[in-house]
Amino acid sequence: MIGVAVLGYGTVGSGVYEVLKLNADSIKRKAGEELKVLNVLDLRNFPGDEVENVLTHDYEDILNNDDIKIIAEVMGGVEPAFTFSKKALMKGKSVVTSNKALVAAHGPELMKIAKENNANYLFEASCGGGIPIIRPLCVSLTADKINSIKGILNGTTNFILTKMTEEGKDFNEVLKTAQSLGYAEADPTADIEGHDPCRKIAILSSLAFGKTVDFNKIYTEGITKITDKDINYGKKLNSVIKLIGSSNKIGDSISAMVAPFLFNEKHPLASVNNAFNAIFVNGNMSGDTMYYGSGAGKLPTASAVVADIIDCALHLGKNVPIDWDCDSSMDVLPIDDVPVKALIRVAYEDIENAKKAVYDVFGTEVFIDLDEGDDEFAFIAENETEGSIKEKKEKLSSFAAVKEVRNMIRMEG
Amino acid sequence: MIGVAVLGYGTVGSGVYEVLKLNADSIKRKAGEELKVLNVLDLRNFPGDEVENVLTHDYEDILNNDDIKIIAEVMGGVEPAFTFSKKALMKGKSVVTSNKALVAAHGPELMKIAKENNANYLFEASCGGGIPIIRPLCVSLTADKINSIKGILNGTTNFILTKMTEEGKDFNEVLKTAQSLGYAEADPTADIEGHDPCRKIAILSSLAFGKTVDFNKIYTEGITKITDKDINYGKKLNSVIKLIGSSNKIGDSISAMVAPFLFNEKHPLASVNNAFNAIFVNGNMSGDTMYYGSGAGKLPTASAVVADIIDCALHLGKNVPIDWDCDSSMDVLPIDDVPVKALIRVAYEDIENAKKAVYDVFGTEVFIDLDEGDDEFAFIAENETEGSIKEKKEKLSSFAAVKEVRNMIRMEG
Repeated sequence: MIGVAVLGYGTVGSGVYEVLKLNADSIKRKAGEELKVLNVLDLRNFPGDEVENVLTHDYEDILNNDDIKIIAEVMGGVEPAFTFSKKALMKGKSVVTSNKALVAAHGPELMKIAKENNANYLFEASCGGGIPIIRPLCVSLTADKINSIKGILNGTTNFILTKMTEEGKDFNEVLKTAQSLGYAEADPTADIEGHDPCRKIAILSSLAFGKTVDFNKIYTEGITKITDKDINYGKKLNSVIKLIGSSNKIGDSISAMVAPFLFNEKHPLASVNNAFNAIFVNGNMSGDTMYYGSGAGKLPTASAVVADIIDCALHLGKNVPIDWDCDSSMDVLPIDDVPVKALIRVAYEDIENAKKAVYDVFGTEVFIDLDEGDDEFAFIAENETEGSIKEKKEKLSSFAAVKEVRNMIRMEG
Repeated sequence: MIGVAVLGYGTVGSGVYEVLKLNADSIKRKAGEELKVLNVLDLRNFPGDEVENVLTHDYEDILNNDDIKIIAEVMGGVEPAFTFSKKALMKGKSVVTSNKALVAAHGPELMKIAKENNANYLFEASCGGGIPIIRPLCVSLTADKINSIKGILNGTTNFILTKMTEEGKDFNEVLKTAQSLGYAEADPTADIEGHDPCRKIAILSSLAFGKTVDFNKIYTEGITKITDKDINYGKKLNSVIKLIGSSNKIGDSISAMVAPFLFNEKHPLASVNNAFNAIFVNGNMSGDTMYYGSGAGKLPTASAVVADIIDCALHLGKNVPIDWDCDSSMDVLPIDDVPVKALIRVAYEDIENAKKAVYDVFGTEVFIDLDEGDDEFAFIAENETEGSIKEKKEKLSSFAAVKEVRNMIRMEG
């Protein structure tokens, strides 16, 4: 028997407890030994719930129990999760987590402590919920050098964009539906402003490229400015809008960002709908591969946490190396230098002269019109950088024929 | 330095040689040591190719070289690959392979010999080419019990079906194009008749359900009978036809088959086009996950072979257990007992009475008409088994109003 403790009895924590119980027989076979939850830490009480038998309010109980070899930290947030994880690893206990905020902020430090203490710090559930992505990156695509990794990394925003696309509703209306269905939190900021996928793409990029990517350096834009107009331009181009976290190797640096992107409907990421997530990887030998599944949810996320627990059980007392140099930082290109292709919407005072202005500034004569009798058109800017496009948008705004430059949506490819 | 030998310098073999050379630096870092090809076995000579420096025609050279710890068997076919693999494993050398015919026929025996000799027998490249699927099944979805696994497992037939769907061409015409582009072999039988995906779904099912699934017990139907009419009925139902290998847990048995299936265009497998493959897994905790990528091709397949070589290098002298009980056979339901839903095409002498006959036999009054001014209609048979549907089709054929029962295409869901 190998003792396990669970820190936090919220959605994921109760899921971990449930998975370990429901699949106990097959998990025992795969781990080589029975995995038994000896303690669950939570500040609350759960009268009538069988977890009461193993509940503790004091972390020291867990830390000082030598039978507990593996700890599932599913509390979320940086503190006290960071301190708890550090203390456990320093005692040689392995820690697994679904906590993307902590991994993005202190993953390298925790991995180093794990290594020094012949333990493991694993975090499959921190990116993409129940989708196996970290293990495929670390143990399957080992013959490859990764060129790029990008994905739909947030279920809430993908649910909102799917409903906006399918039902023609506006952002605020769909957000309310998402909240009432439990797909969005009461304070949805971390999701809709892109902070959640920003941390996830930072973790995935660190694993893909082997050095720490600082999430603070990743340009991040959410979906709050996306309107039905944007979605309709997408439809006109046989494309859909997805919130994408992406990271591309460019020389010894990477370009990285989180932003809404237009994807042609034939791209595999375009058909990833509702709360599903997917990660698309390009390797120099394997070419394109994609990993699809539930990006959140109690049991899928818990399934990933428990898979990490089993991995720790199979490697007790032995650190399994991860190809992420915790002492090196990946160089992230300044946002202005990042290559970009985008759809740009222009509102006009005078359509002919506004189009002439676009030609003068961007050199294109191809325009997209929604035929909605409105005061705007759009065009596609290619072979630009984020910096050049910003400058040119400002220049375009200065023409008298141009009322304003409205939304700009980046395009894949 | 760890010595490697490659058996067969064909497409995959030369790819393995190339991957090990091109990514030598990162592979060395991940394997912990340099991996060096000391011998390549092939009956042919390759004048002017640098492989000449390590080429041998005699397998004994490899077998007797103690520096060679890992052998990539990429010859294809059962013999002599089986004998060669067995001899290597008995000497404690690990063997990795892309050879689905050999794994489906003798995988369990080779895995047992590997275990007895503290070596490993790995076969990631045997199913799905460059798609990581075997490792996710074995090391990621460990917290789950698998309910079903199904996929597009053959690039040739998926290319043909995609072109038939997109371009409205008929089977034989597209097959010729596929052959001229190198997507189909001169003798395409193994692909178009489904023998290739049959072996792959047998291997995947064995891993998913933990016991050996005999590929001879899997009902197999290819795509040679699919016509543009079938594809047009699909379009009418917002669906596409895909050749699917599938396997579902039903009690202690599985239902397994290879056959063309209609998939609604919103299903993630529906947008897997051309030579791409994908495997869709349902776990009792993780829910639906899907793995997408190049199902064949020199470098993607070689990338999977080399990932297995790296795994063997990390576990020299230590057998890594695989959750596949090599001494037990999985019970496969007789095909007549397998539940099925299908679109059935009926040619009529007298449309009204033919529809009445369908109602009498299948109980449905919903009919699908292509509006092509032809002599047929179709309907959907639900809640049937393969056996009941066969009987009812015969009964339907006996009505005077019915000219013949034409193609039947199974439907997902």
